[in-house]
Amino acid sequence: MRIGVLTGGGDCPGLNAVIRAVVRKGIDAHGWDVIGYRSGWQGPMTGESKPLGLDSVEDILTRGGTILGSSRTNPYKADGGVEQIRATLAKDGVDALIAIGGEDTLGVAKRLTDDGIGVVGVPKTIDNDLGATDYTFGFDTAVHIATEAIDRLHTTAESHHRALVVEVMGRHAGWIALHSGLAGGASVILVPERQFSVPQVVEWVERRFEREYAPIIVVAEGALPEGGAEMLQSGEKDAFGHVRLGGIGTWLAEEIAQRTGKESRAVVLGHTQRGGTPTAYDRVLATRFGLNAVDAVADKDFGTMVALRGTDIVRVKLSEATAELKTVPAERYAEAEVFFG
Amino acid sequence: MRIGVLTGGGDCPGLNAVIRAVVRKGIDAHGWDVIGYRSGWQGPMTGESKPLGLDSVEDILTRGGTILGSSRTNPYKADGGVEQIRATLAKDGVDALIAIGGEDTLGVAKRLTDDGIGVVGVPKTIDNDLGATDYTFGFDTAVHIATEAIDRLHTTAESHHRALVVEVMGRHAGWIALHSGLAGGASVILVPERQFSVPQVVEWVERRFEREYAPIIVVAEGALPEGGAEMLQSGEKDAFGHVRLGGIGTWLAEEIAQRTGKESRAVVLGHTQRGGTPTAYDRVLATRFGLNAVDAVADKDFGTMVALRGTDIVRVKLSEATAELKTVPAERYAEAEVFFG
Amino acid sequence: MRIGVLTGGGDCPGLNAVIRAVVRKGIDAHGWDVIGYRSGWQGPMTGESKPLGLDSVEDILTRGGTILGSSRTNPYKADGGVEQIRATLAKDGVDALIAIGGEDTLGVAKRLTDDGIGVVGVPKTIDNDLGATDYTFGFDTAVHIATEAIDRLHTTAESHHRALVVEVMGRHAGWIALHSGLAGGASVILVPERQFSVPQVVEWVERRFEREYAPIIVVAEGALPEGGAEMLQSGEKDAFGHVRLGGIGTWLAEEIAQRTGKESRAVVLGHTQRGGTPTAYDRVLATRFGLNAVDAVADKDFGTMVALRGTDIVRVKLSEATAELKTVPAERYAEAEVFFG
Amino acid sequence: MRIGVLTGGGDCPGLNAVIRAVVRKGIDAHGWDVIGYRSGWQGPMTGESKPLGLDSVEDILTRGGTILGSSRTNPYKADGGVEQIRATLAKDGVDALIAIGGEDTLGVAKRLTDDGIGVVGVPKTIDNDLGATDYTFGFDTAVHIATEAIDRLHTTAESHHRALVVEVMGRHAGWIALHSGLAGGASVILVPERQFSVPQVVEWVERRFEREYAPIIVVAEGALPEGGAEMLQSGEKDAFGHVRLGGIGTWLAEEIAQRTGKESRAVVLGHTQRGGTPTAYDRVLATRFGLNAVDAVADKDFGTMVALRGTDIVRVKLSEATAELKTVPAERYAEAEVFFG
Repeated sequence: MRIGVLTGGGDCPGLNAVIRAVVRKGIDAHGWDVIGYRSGWQGPMTGESKPLGLDSVEDILTRGGTILGSSRTNPYKADGGVEQIRATLAKDGVDALIAIGGEDTLGVAKRLTDDGIGVVGVPKTIDNDLGATDYTFGFDTAVHIATEAIDRLHTTAESHHRALVVEVMGRHAGWIALHSGLAGGASVILVPERQFSVPQVVEWVERRFEREYAPIIVVAEGALPEGGAEMLQSGEKDAFGHVRLGGIGTWLAEEIAQRTGKESRAVVLGHTQRGGTPTAYDRVLATRFGLNAVDAVADKDFGTMVALRGTDIVRVKLSEATAELKTVPAERYAEAEVFFG
Repeated sequence: MRIGVLTGGGDCPGLNAVIRAVVRKGIDAHGWDVIGYRSGWQGPMTGESKPLGLDSVEDILTRGGTILGSSRTNPYKADGGVEQIRATLAKDGVDALIAIGGEDTLGVAKRLTDDGIGVVGVPKTIDNDLGATDYTFGFDTAVHIATEAIDRLHTTAESHHRALVVEVMGRHAGWIALHSGLAGGASVILVPERQFSVPQVVEWVERRFEREYAPIIVVAEGALPEGGAEMLQSGEKDAFGHVRLGGIGTWLAEEIAQRTGKESRAVVLGHTQRGGTPTAYDRVLATRFGLNAVDAVADKDFGTMVALRGTDIVRVKLSEATAELKTVPAERYAEAEVFFG
Repeated sequence: MRIGVLTGGGDCPGLNAVIRAVVRKGIDAHGWDVIGYRSGWQGPMTGESKPLGLDSVEDILTRGGTILGSSRTNPYKADGGVEQIRATLAKDGVDALIAIGGEDTLGVAKRLTDDGIGVVGVPKTIDNDLGATDYTFGFDTAVHIATEAIDRLHTTAESHHRALVVEVMGRHAGWIALHSGLAGGASVILVPERQFSVPQVVEWVERRFEREYAPIIVVAEGALPEGGAEMLQSGEKDAFGHVRLGGIGTWLAEEIAQRTGKESRAVVLGHTQRGGTPTAYDRVLATRFGLNAVDAVADKDFGTMVALRGTDIVRVKLSEATAELKTVPAERYAEAEVFFG
Repeated sequence: MRIGVLTGGGDCPGLNAVIRAVVRKGIDAHGWDVIGYRSGWQGPMTGESKPLGLDSVEDILTRGGTILGSSRTNPYKADGGVEQIRATLAKDGVDALIAIGGEDTLGVAKRLTDDGIGVVGVPKTIDNDLGATDYTFGFDTAVHIATEAIDRLHTTAESHHRALVVEVMGRHAGWIALHSGLAGGASVILVPERQFSVPQVVEWVERRFEREYAPIIVVAEGALPEGGAEMLQSGEKDAFGHVRLGGIGTWLAEEIAQRTGKESRAVVLGHTQRGGTPTAYDRVLATRFGLNAVDAVADKDFGTMVALRGTDIVRVKLSEATAELKTVPAERYAEAEVFFG
């Protein structure tokens, strides 16, 4: 038996740990051949691949990124994409695929299974916004990095009686903001799930200053002020003719400065959150996902995705898996509000 | 209303995060007074306490240890211990207690509730061996530290074609060994749940050397060779008259060296695993435990303990909570065996 | 004998380590009293101070910031500022001062010594731009943090064939950019000491892409493109009426994107570089500075500053110490150019 | 022109950074070929080598260990070793060698130069005990790791009123103990340069307990109690027939426990100190060493070694370089004594 593996979508610590687990278990436990397709769905379309032997996955467990490369190519949006995949798999003698990726990658996996190609999915979203699984790998690493940054910023905030706004990832779901804000002892946490009131934020900030501590405000990149959606859409050009889109972190720091008269600064963590070596938590989760995806292939349980439920790895239908975005529920946000101000 | 909080048993990163959450929620959400009893159950026996205001928990979220101190004092093993506690609580006007600790501390909490004193428990075991909860805080930090050490040791193992044995915590349960071994890419993982065969370990070690990589063997402190329980009990004295008890890590490194003829070294991680700043994961879990313990007190739901189930914090009866040691099940160990050798 | 200590200017990891060393050595080795003046030179002007006993410096060695607070107050710019200081020292019975700070703080220290008040200086500049000393504490920590961020960004750059621009501190001197760029394996390092040619940067970036690796460009916040000084000064307002000043990192990322057609992103590390626990290197250096400053006071060697030369702590005249900005010399920049492209 | 590079002796973070710098500068700046000899001096004896192109050094800057492997082989202790080297270099067309290693490796480098083979040395000693250079790479990483461990142990020491002994590397020189002890806020630092009095150590420990803080004792592996040299030499066998040599850390913890009646534990950091990714400081130093070694080869300045003096990289004669062990001088130890007790 021969299986193929591929990674699609954005960068996420733990991808290589999944690949390694697939290769180790596929070869050592089942005696399969494993080949890696390059650049997401583009690989099985163009035939670009490389054999993955035991040696090829030595030393990748701790590395960020993906040794297979990634892309956002969608075979259903390309003429004859699915037929190309079918031809590649036939030529390579590949019996089944393991596809590691987010909503788009898994959506393709589902349709391919419906079209008769056996695929098992491994969920990947650094934002942790997939309903079918308790957690996804990469999330713990992102929270860890954001928390380390917040820890460092407390010092500067307090030495200079300054408000510091930290913008973290999270366009549609505020999980990274919620967890890093709780872990970092933030004075305010703002998430996309709930538009915030600037006067309320200012009140929390001022209450914090009154207690003689300097506030840290953690804001998800997708959070918006009340009525703010339109405001933030208007980009304009700077002196060099570049279009500037106001990031919410910088915008909020300026608002706070103007309304409180206190110094206020923004730090935008950006891509530092999604690169580098995964945390131990993410390595274990990614490894278990890879091992269990191989089990699903062995069981010919295609059209499924591995998922974490409590401490167990289970399988869920791909059709259910991608149905719904998992956002921060009101009661989890309410938990955090105890620490505001 | 006034509540007391105390910490018992061994050191564990996240204790202060629980205390902070109890204080913040008790004062800010409920308007209660909170006092901290010192040194576990000794505090309510002797009356040693300090008021915990909002200021007293600033700046403790990131700190290891416990600002309340700890002990292994058991009021049921001291004459009149329970009456002393009753008297202290009456004198201090304390209506309920939150007790943070392991099996012993929670066992006392259960009996005190039976004896009419309202206690809510927060579970603490760095070894993660409590059946009633998916995870306990401190465990992720211990795994993180052990994994960082293993990452570093790979280098040395490979540069010198040397076997390295890493002894981690875990007297009765091998969770830290299992998770850090998986995360660190160990060649062999040995746990207390299953006596190991030295010839089998040697075979894995030699297979690893044949692949031209150097083996890392992760061993829980409580793991034993087949028939080894008696062997390890015989301590003898060294040149200074000190009794020497052979740690399993050192013992195993010597066995491997003798049987393979390869250089072999042991590293015993020891107390570095249980001190210092908690990981983001543990800070979030500890904080949520603290918040939910306050809810339980508000609900007068005494004799319960907070626990993690999936992503939810739930309450379980203390009587059930401490009934059973959670050990590594055979199927979780089998997952890891794929990577042996 | 009684001495005072104060910290002035911006935040810098290691300030507390200096204070601790001053207190421990002042009390334990000399039997002096030590008092801490708050908020830089403002403290001795207003009399705001606190006694610094051994207990007050327990547990501060690892903390960022300063337990004394800081300010940019200059007694020579305030009416009667020097007389206020003289009066405070007389009232407090303080015989000499240790002033920890940058160019401004040390400039005041020098003038006060000329005016008959005994001051010893401890140099502090996170940018490492003080000519009289090989290194200053805080610099190694900043380089460490920037390097960790660059390490993480490599992953993302390579997984997505993307150029990443990292903006680090350094308004007038490029030391942090030079060291973190070397340590992080940057493809281009840009410093304030030399205006850069955008076409040259683009050439390096494209050469790097041709080698199939993604480029990381490290740029000091004070670096400028040729002829760029004027361009960057023109701020304009965004949709919210906030003035936007184009940071060089963001500007450069956009230029690279436009000229190469490749995706390009900027990460601005900002205040994360100057907060949090100091590295071991900085703790040792800061501690030795503090100890040696006490020696200088004991020798009544006022008007001097402690400095690192090789592995020795020496004293230099404050008049010489602040004479000259230490910038990156051409030969050090040439060393790094080997790695460009 | 073609040059060879090799690494000898024990593991040390930064070796790969030197190799990378040699390759990048050799190829890009000079247009040379570079080949890597494997396993120290064994490589040029047996002819085992690999070409080092630009690709071969991508991605190695951050890795511990050495991509060339290492050994302790000495051509002057093997029959015809030097002639073998001469033959290999002739066959490979290699004009000069860069040898990265400690006292032994550099001693061979010196003799080979005397025998007409052009060698430039790069000093490597994690213990920092080489007189000719201010610092060597690897040392800062070792101090960093030891300091992180000490930071974590403070928590446990204080929560449990326990003395903790931390054994760090340093057989003949106490630099790692001195720097990590200063950086970690140790209560006692013990080095090989000065035999220690157990009663004095106990006095410091007890004074520390009286101040209500728990003592951390940092001890170099080569430190000895007064009159202790003989005592520690007598090994005996344990129940398994293994010879046990009492490590000084464990021995001292037991002594302290017996003499103070307080709990006392030892942690032996061991090989974790010499593996893994180098600190930014060590990467910069190693990189500069590599670059400057290439300059020395270009200048045909053989028989020299690169060294750090202040912030400059200089060249020193190999004959002088290895003449003397750099131990901790009395005045540096006296600096630290201020913090004892």
